[in-house]
Amino acid sequence: MTKIGFLGPKGTFSQEAMEEYIRQGGCFSPADYNTIPDIIIAVDSGEMDEAIVPIENSLEGAVNATMDMLAFDVGLFIKAEVVIPVRQNLLVKKGTNLADITQILSHSQPLGQCRKYLNANFPDACVRTVYSTAGAAEEVANGSGRMAAIGSITAARVYGLEAAATNIQDEDSNFTRFVVVSKSDAQRTGRDKTSVVFSTEDKPGSLYRILDIFNLWDINMERIESRPAKNQLGKYIFFVDIEGHRDDPDIRDALTMIKRKTSFYKFLGSYPKHVNAGAGGV
Amino acid sequence: MTKIGFLGPKGTFSQEAMEEYIRQGGCFSPADYNTIPDIIIAVDSGEMDEAIVPIENSLEGAVNATMDMLAFDVGLFIKAEVVIPVRQNLLVKKGTNLADITQILSHSQPLGQCRKYLNANFPDACVRTVYSTAGAAEEVANGSGRMAAIGSITAARVYGLEAAATNIQDEDSNFTRFVVVSKSDAQRTGRDKTSVVFSTEDKPGSLYRILDIFNLWDINMERIESRPAKNQLGKYIFFVDIEGHRDDPDIRDALTMIKRKTSFYKFLGSYPKHVNAGAGGV
Repeated sequence: MTKIGFLGPKGTFSQEAMEEYIRQGGCFSPADYNTIPDIIIAVDSGEMDEAIVPIENSLEGAVNATMDMLAFDVGLFIKAEVVIPVRQNLLVKKGTNLADITQILSHSQPLGQCRKYLNANFPDACVRTVYSTAGAAEEVANGSGRMAAIGSITAARVYGLEAAATNIQDEDSNFTRFVVVSKSDAQRTGRDKTSVVFSTEDKPGSLYRILDIFNLWDINMERIESRPAKNQLGKYIFFVDIEGHRDDPDIRDALTMIKRKTSFYKFLGSYPKHVNAGAGGV
Repeated sequence: MTKIGFLGPKGTFSQEAMEEYIRQGGCFSPADYNTIPDIIIAVDSGEMDEAIVPIENSLEGAVNATMDMLAFDVGLFIKAEVVIPVRQNLLVKKGTNLADITQILSHSQPLGQCRKYLNANFPDACVRTVYSTAGAAEEVANGSGRMAAIGSITAARVYGLEAAATNIQDEDSNFTRFVVVSKSDAQRTGRDKTSVVFSTEDKPGSLYRILDIFNLWDINMERIESRPAKNQLGKYIFFVDIEGHRDDPDIRDALTMIKRKTSFYKFLGSYPKHVNAGAGGV
């Protein structure tokens, strides 16, 4: 039985992603945690075997807490990815009149994903950021009938709300990518990707020289994401996803060279591509 | 008299950044706005002449609302940047005993900046994300004495709180970079930077070929930041800051070439480097 942690409370998209992962096979015992750092630390300490955490949304971008924990705080690896579509809904107490709504609550990501809808439909409402969509749904359920939450249909069901409007996200191309982290990564399947994080040497052109290495070995870079190095404004670390597995000779040679040419380098794992993850390169 | 918008309410770091900008000269009439989109749209519509908005923090990274508005929603230019140090403090009602604190409130950025302090000192407290640090301070001022807010000394003063702990940010290298946007950018000073945003062609190695252009012209890239293109998971736009002014011949030629080699390109302005902005390259 594999113990797997996910971001609670129940009814979130994280639970949906976990269920999708579990359907791929194996025997799992899930536990929900309050924060992304809590889940990741639970795997690092051995309390959990695996954890599924969001890493990227197609509208809002990188999930910073996940990226920073993997880069700086733990020695874990990515062993799988799961991509799920995100559908947001306006959740209200049964019988609420939309014209009466003066306050809209949700987590910052769903609010960001519905910015245009909110500006068009509720220009005068007070938009309040809360810690989770489930927390928002609960507050609306206990509230005055002048509030609405933004969240999943599952959250509506759990908290006894109704969806006054469905699919209100600004773009239909709204997907969240989750990664499964554990103490080891995955075996080669032939349809794999590899994640690394590094900081370049502190001189002009150093990122260019790293990308030159991928170019030299004809390696497709699928994603590059910068995050602050945290020790100085203007210093960055780069998260890079490339096509292939660490056991592929070209990948192995390129990574060896990158390790030598960077001031900080961390291998984050090789794992099979999720079927929804899309192709492409940058 | 130049009308300048900033992110309210009063007492935030945005006000501090605006005051620093105003000290550089000129005659200004400030107005505070509730959200970053509101401020930027106020300039786009001509209601304000200029706006100062946060774009990057040295711990938390890019400010997505600012980046996305400049890339997708308006045709404005950056005419200046201001960098200020961020000092966070634990704000409580006078006479509160730290051991009684069960709830900690702030905006997500200050919470992210004090993550280690909170884990070490308040592992059991409920951490709640609210819309602004000033909102958090106000709620604490009206609350039960079991709450604390994280915010600036100015916020403590405005809301009659006391700082139970000062400088609680995880890293002393905590700076926020603000940009001033308006309908035109700045003249050449000889110590300038230039910002552009583009998306690469949808094929492997296309980002590498863009950086190759900078390398060819010996142009120092100071920052590269990716954001989702929003139309598909795995597609990105890149914000790049380079050293130099659009009137410099090398910059002009390189930008002409980049415009031709990208599927989406937008010039965001040339402006003088702020004295605190640091040097370096990536």
